[in-house]
Amino acid sequence: MFDSLQVMVPKEIAEEVGGLKALVPTGTSVLVEGHLEATPEGTKQAVELKATKVVHVGPCDAATYPIAKKKTSYEFLREKMHLRPRANTIGAVARIRNALAFATHKFFQENGFLYVHTPIITASDCEGAGEMFQVTTLLSKAKELSGQPGVSQEALATARKAVADAGDEVKAAKAAAAANKEDKSLAAASKAAVDRLLKLKEELAVAEDGARVVGGIKRLPDGTPDYKEDFFGKPSFLTVSGQLQGEFYACALSNIYTFGPTFRAEYSYTARHLAEFWMIEPEIAFCDLKDDMQCAEDYVRFCCKYLLDNCRPDLEFINKMVDNTALARLEQVASTPFKRVSYTEAIELLEGVVASGKKQFEFKVEWGIDLQTEHERYLTEEIFKQPVIVYNYPKEIKAFYMRLNDDNKTVAAMDVLVPKVGELIGGSQREDRLDVLERRLGESGMDLAAYEGYLDLRRYGTVPHSGFGLGFERLILFATGLDNIREVIPFPRWPGNASY
Amino acid sequence: MFDSLQVMVPKEIAEEVGGLKALVPTGTSVLVEGHLEATPEGTKQAVELKATKVVHVGPCDAATYPIAKKKTSYEFLREKMHLRPRANTIGAVARIRNALAFATHKFFQENGFLYVHTPIITASDCEGAGEMFQVTTLLSKAKELSGQPGVSQEALATARKAVADAGDEVKAAKAAAAANKEDKSLAAASKAAVDRLLKLKEELAVAEDGARVVGGIKRLPDGTPDYKEDFFGKPSFLTVSGQLQGEFYACALSNIYTFGPTFRAEYSYTARHLAEFWMIEPEIAFCDLKDDMQCAEDYVRFCCKYLLDNCRPDLEFINKMVDNTALARLEQVASTPFKRVSYTEAIELLEGVVASGKKQFEFKVEWGIDLQTEHERYLTEEIFKQPVIVYNYPKEIKAFYMRLNDDNKTVAAMDVLVPKVGELIGGSQREDRLDVLERRLGESGMDLAAYEGYLDLRRYGTVPHSGFGLGFERLILFATGLDNIREVIPFPRWPGNASY
Repeated sequence: MFDSLQVMVPKEIAEEVGGLKALVPTGTSVLVEGHLEATPEGTKQAVELKATKVVHVGPCDAATYPIAKKKTSYEFLREKMHLRPRANTIGAVARIRNALAFATHKFFQENGFLYVHTPIITASDCEGAGEMFQVTTLLSKAKELSGQPGVSQEALATARKAVADAGDEVKAAKAAAAANKEDKSLAAASKAAVDRLLKLKEELAVAEDGARVVGGIKRLPDGTPDYKEDFFGKPSFLTVSGQLQGEFYACALSNIYTFGPTFRAEYSYTARHLAEFWMIEPEIAFCDLKDDMQCAEDYVRFCCKYLLDNCRPDLEFINKMVDNTALARLEQVASTPFKRVSYTEAIELLEGVVASGKKQFEFKVEWGIDLQTEHERYLTEEIFKQPVIVYNYPKEIKAFYMRLNDDNKTVAAMDVLVPKVGELIGGSQREDRLDVLERRLGESGMDLAAYEGYLDLRRYGTVPHSGFGLGFERLILFATGLDNIREVIPFPRWPGNASY
Repeated sequence: MFDSLQVMVPKEIAEEVGGLKALVPTGTSVLVEGHLEATPEGTKQAVELKATKVVHVGPCDAATYPIAKKKTSYEFLREKMHLRPRANTIGAVARIRNALAFATHKFFQENGFLYVHTPIITASDCEGAGEMFQVTTLLSKAKELSGQPGVSQEALATARKAVADAGDEVKAAKAAAAANKEDKSLAAASKAAVDRLLKLKEELAVAEDGARVVGGIKRLPDGTPDYKEDFFGKPSFLTVSGQLQGEFYACALSNIYTFGPTFRAEYSYTARHLAEFWMIEPEIAFCDLKDDMQCAEDYVRFCCKYLLDNCRPDLEFINKMVDNTALARLEQVASTPFKRVSYTEAIELLEGVVASGKKQFEFKVEWGIDLQTEHERYLTEEIFKQPVIVYNYPKEIKAFYMRLNDDNKTVAAMDVLVPKVGELIGGSQREDRLDVLERRLGESGMDLAAYEGYLDLRRYGTVPHSGFGLGFERLILFATGLDNIREVIPFPRWPGNASY
């Protein structure tokens, strides 16, 4: 696309171009024309840029430039979000993130999966509204309505009384007109009374409408907002998962995957949580838990290999500056098949560790518990020292839609655990039997009517199918060894923070 | 990943497997094992599936199956969103959409662009709130607060009076204690009065807080919601464009592109508008308008070529069932360089057409107008009969951030017009000169303070750069010839509609 080699160069390289040295304080942008030359073996860089011409210099006043040349903290950089990608760690992470995103598409495309854009805004009744962001136009309407104060109950009573009185007058006028049909003036008076009544009724309707406005928002009798007035005609939220819609597509068109933003309105300030993050959710038709686990393993290992093959300089930088186990971890995962262990076996292993006195956990280990991060990391980092997939979890701790195993105690669920982050992937075979799914929904106290579409998939040509979800930022934490998830997404969102 | 060829087959193929015929009404899912065989030349299909084993049959009651076997309308299918992808046109569109999405990533990756996830939720002050969806947790909090009615002004006055009275009592008690320091009981009484005052002050604070709650939402004195109480601490919205954040990354790391969902809260029910749609926005460092146009052309033509090479059967189906000019249009665009014409030349051409009486437009043609779809389509479909890029538009009809040309009348903007849809791409070279940008912001009546980050890019190492935006659904409309944009996205959202 471009005629000659034109590259944006960091300060250090630009300084090598004759006469430019005085012009390049931190923050300066420089474009040079030139070519790359191989350097002799043993030198620091593999290639050297031989710049022959300076094409553009965008100057920078070092005195006011907000980012100091010395090492700055990640926290400080988060306050300068618009300049943050100029920091070399953030730049390396951006390139690693890009490579993992493309590796994701490449893997699924090469395996015949369709990329499906599941919706971001959803009015689906299936989701518990507790941790969801609401999407609305009611509050901006409230601004427009702020000049119109709600009608008081007194004004409303007055309007109602006027209508009732006018109704009585109509009755009387009609009776008078009926009693003396010859008298045209009585008929005219009756018509005038009717007209007056109609006008007062219209005014009452307006007043009643006004009385429903509280705090700028029209209300139902119980005081909750009248969502008929909202953009989508009902309460609408930001998606927490594309699985439901992914199943619709997988059961129609075979294997699909999603890759899009998902949201949680949780007041969490930890290094592991974001209010907005990206998720990959494949859904595989005619697939049982065994194939699902294999797909998850193949996908993660493909990503690691792709990264090692395509992002070497950035990985080496990360390995040197951030986490000196990052490269070894990626290489191990790329080359080693994942272990598989049932939940029951995993619990036995952990119980053995506790019994031997080798390790004490904060949360007690016993069959039936939901594995905590401390348990997950011990399994993958200490016991197996490599990625491990735990499968067949107690049904009580997993979602209603996971396929019930024949033991009637466990469901066909699986979690992929990796060193450094613990749970990287969660997935399951879906319950494809209509009667079992209806029973499980009932047991979970869910409203069957809200799941009609989901049940239709089991009614009309049910397909055994499985899927999983991977939080994209967790994959980047795993690859880079960075501690805080806010560093691995370009514009992190958490409570109180949505700048730019 | 899979051991044997297992494919989900349409009814027609499944019927060819012996003994299965009675089992396969519309809606049934069937999985067979077998292999593909080439068919003799001249037969209808190029390959035939030789099924040797039926692996799975998911039955379907044809009597209750919601989608009839006969041709159904697109409107009807939109009411059965969960089964809609089973319709063969929607299936073909899903595969075409998938191919165009991957072609997009492939094109930009192969040209060294970084994929950047710009944020979905933004509290950026730069955006006019008019057409944006608000993201909030205030309304769900309002539900929690509904049991606590706002404190009345009367109750508040009572609480204030109590504090004032108690204050007077404190003064009197302190004076009495000071006048007679020997009397310990006076000192004790003074302390008790102070304690009472503190308690009443606390109660007043609670009452004042309560009085700020109107309609379940805490308010500022002017009645607007107190956004300190909202999740992000200020009004937050769904993004309408990733350009701003894309520029931050392009000016740090060179060429980038975004590919994500964008939103418009417009009450539009047309066949061309969605409330939620996907957009691709590349941002190119060290790039002028000429290179920008070349990049846009290369990208669109790459997509067409990729589609022709990878989606032939679906394109042939579409060409037969939906739009018999679709294939020819794709082939022309893939093989023909785009024309380029300045805005001024385009206006002259259209004026000539009007003067000759060949065509009358609804909107008058003269220098300075914003080109309407009727003008755009006439240029690309009738005058040039191929894609054409119009560039250098009057500054009055374009955004403040587009680079001012030396004529001081036009800006370095460009639109790519294609047959069937008109405008497919809009882009520009960005104003990279700090002084010009500040002047243009002022002329547009914008608040400079809200654009500090954007101005910083010009202050600290400014980089000449350009970019464009392509509405992904428009590209699919162009490729398929479908008339309604609701058919080319898996789960369309428009006013009153956000099901699933």
